[in-house]
Amino acid sequence: MSRFWSSLTHDLKPYVPGEQPRMSELVKLNTNESPFGPSPRALEAIRGEAADTLRLYPDPQASALRAALAAYHDVRPEQVFVGNGSDEVLAHAFAALLKHDAPLLFPDITYSFYPVYCRLFGITYETVPLDQVMQIRVADYRRPAGALILPNPNAPTGIALSRAEIANLLEQHPNAPVVIDEAYVDFGAETAIPLVASHRNLLVVQTMSKSRALAGLRVGYAIGDADLIEGLTRVKDSFNSYPLGRPAQAGAIASLEDEAYFQASRARVIEGRERLNRGLIRLGFDVLPSSANFVFARHPAHEGAALATALRQRAVIVRHFSAPRIADHLRISVGTDEQTDRLLSALSDILGGP
Amino acid sequence: MSRFWSSLTHDLKPYVPGEQPRMSELVKLNTNESPFGPSPRALEAIRGEAADTLRLYPDPQASALRAALAAYHDVRPEQVFVGNGSDEVLAHAFAALLKHDAPLLFPDITYSFYPVYCRLFGITYETVPLDQVMQIRVADYRRPAGALILPNPNAPTGIALSRAEIANLLEQHPNAPVVIDEAYVDFGAETAIPLVASHRNLLVVQTMSKSRALAGLRVGYAIGDADLIEGLTRVKDSFNSYPLGRPAQAGAIASLEDEAYFQASRARVIEGRERLNRGLIRLGFDVLPSSANFVFARHPAHEGAALATALRQRAVIVRHFSAPRIADHLRISVGTDEQTDRLLSALSDILGGP
Repeated sequence: MSRFWSSLTHDLKPYVPGEQPRMSELVKLNTNESPFGPSPRALEAIRGEAADTLRLYPDPQASALRAALAAYHDVRPEQVFVGNGSDEVLAHAFAALLKHDAPLLFPDITYSFYPVYCRLFGITYETVPLDQVMQIRVADYRRPAGALILPNPNAPTGIALSRAEIANLLEQHPNAPVVIDEAYVDFGAETAIPLVASHRNLLVVQTMSKSRALAGLRVGYAIGDADLIEGLTRVKDSFNSYPLGRPAQAGAIASLEDEAYFQASRARVIEGRERLNRGLIRLGFDVLPSSANFVFARHPAHEGAALATALRQRAVIVRHFSAPRIADHLRISVGTDEQTDRLLSALSDILGGP
Repeated sequence: MSRFWSSLTHDLKPYVPGEQPRMSELVKLNTNESPFGPSPRALEAIRGEAADTLRLYPDPQASALRAALAAYHDVRPEQVFVGNGSDEVLAHAFAALLKHDAPLLFPDITYSFYPVYCRLFGITYETVPLDQVMQIRVADYRRPAGALILPNPNAPTGIALSRAEIANLLEQHPNAPVVIDEAYVDFGAETAIPLVASHRNLLVVQTMSKSRALAGLRVGYAIGDADLIEGLTRVKDSFNSYPLGRPAQAGAIASLEDEAYFQASRARVIEGRERLNRGLIRLGFDVLPSSANFVFARHPAHEGAALATALRQRAVIVRHFSAPRIADHLRISVGTDEQTDRLLSALSDILGGP
């Protein structure tokens, strides 16, 4: 606390990201990173930016990257917004689009950054409980709302809604902006991007951190009606003109150009998830049906916090949330087969132990 | 305008950065970039990050970079904050430290992003006029203030205050946060960092975009009392956990390690500025005494806008602001000797023309 802080600063409850330990021998399954590296073409493009031209500012509009994303997703460049990771894109969306008189709605179990943004921007919100099997029920969102946001697949459950269900939600709330946060969509869910053409209230947010294995580069983006993108751009240009450096813009473009690598990489993650699923079920875990690059699982006979601690003692890190309803679950990222084996073997050791 | 925007979004007047034209044959003297490239060690470090590890998130606390900055500036790591360019650091400072009941004070002629931030965060401000010779007069700030911010050297004038004058300002306002924005300090002004130890209300903001030639990488930072840094960190962690990617953190650290390159590079820019100064004076310009990597100059017989347009027709881009008091000035970045010669020759052509 400091008398020099703005009053806002006192009231914040910052988000706590999963830890980034510096011990490389750890099996790190706590932040949903890709177990496989980025496209070699992306790495080559980044190396190409390590040059004299780094003395120059990047393109503040990121025009080439936005054009590449537009071509990739079959929309127009003015329907594309880019930011310094999808967290920054979400932050701008909260400020630009999600603050209204009526409350913002999101699930009670969801990405824990959402209430943090609400506090930062003074946004009133209401949470809508997941149903008994931890699913979002679109019918439960039939209530007054200034705006809505939900991840698809949801985090940390990994459960996805179909595109038809998202369309249903959009039609329930034609006058409210609806943000669909698709950080994990490439691992088995249907993107809502095709609905942008017919729904002016839809903003879809995606990231290059997960399925494109570029978490260390910081590139996220949003696709929506040009009016929504203009709102985001107004806030961005009132905050930081140049959010994406030259290596980030070039690396992201090159990643989009390497479709074969992207498809192979996400297919391997999906296979790895099914392998992880089977291993956990064999050990007696209840595993939610995941469409993401992680699974959310609980063991009927063991507390989540205790399991997480015991795994840590065996050099395996997973994510545990102490929030109500999910305190007995673990969120486990899909690793390489070797990492999954080390996790399963550590769990077997813990469960079979004295 | 859109019915989906938050009301805030309608009221914004975004900052307009200097253009980044894609024509490489232009003499680009409009955004105060370094005419010389970054340290080769920084480039090497960035290349080193173009690796498999880019699949992993960067350190959200940027601990290694903050430790390197602390060692470089002789402060403790908890006195250092880093962000995605100094514009982002400033944005967080406006939100975390500069919003109070009494108005924020800054000069009438200064970095034009300041009123944009005020609008974004709902901050009441008052501008304090520069004196007749375009200098900041510290005595003029002796008035009620919730907080203060000023660039040193000021932009776009390039004129610096001494450290003693900054100390005087800090002592006038012991209960108000004072941000000194030192984007250009390395080109001949005195940094206020040594005052941090004795002034808990001081935050000094610097950037790697100018004197370290890393505008394309996006790294800025702030140094101040640990309480101020904690306030910034609370806002940052409510906005984006990972503002600096792996290439940015590594490149910035390596740049700090190459002191010889840094010293040689800024000395060359200072020499180039004096050469530019002399050339402009020879052509009849009034040039303000600059401590930055640009000069602010007017010609008694020619309008600023007309000169800027005529230069552009000759493939030379400088920055012109249409604001009152400075509409007849041009802000001209220090280029290589060759670029300066092309500018001076174009001006000679324009001034001597029919």
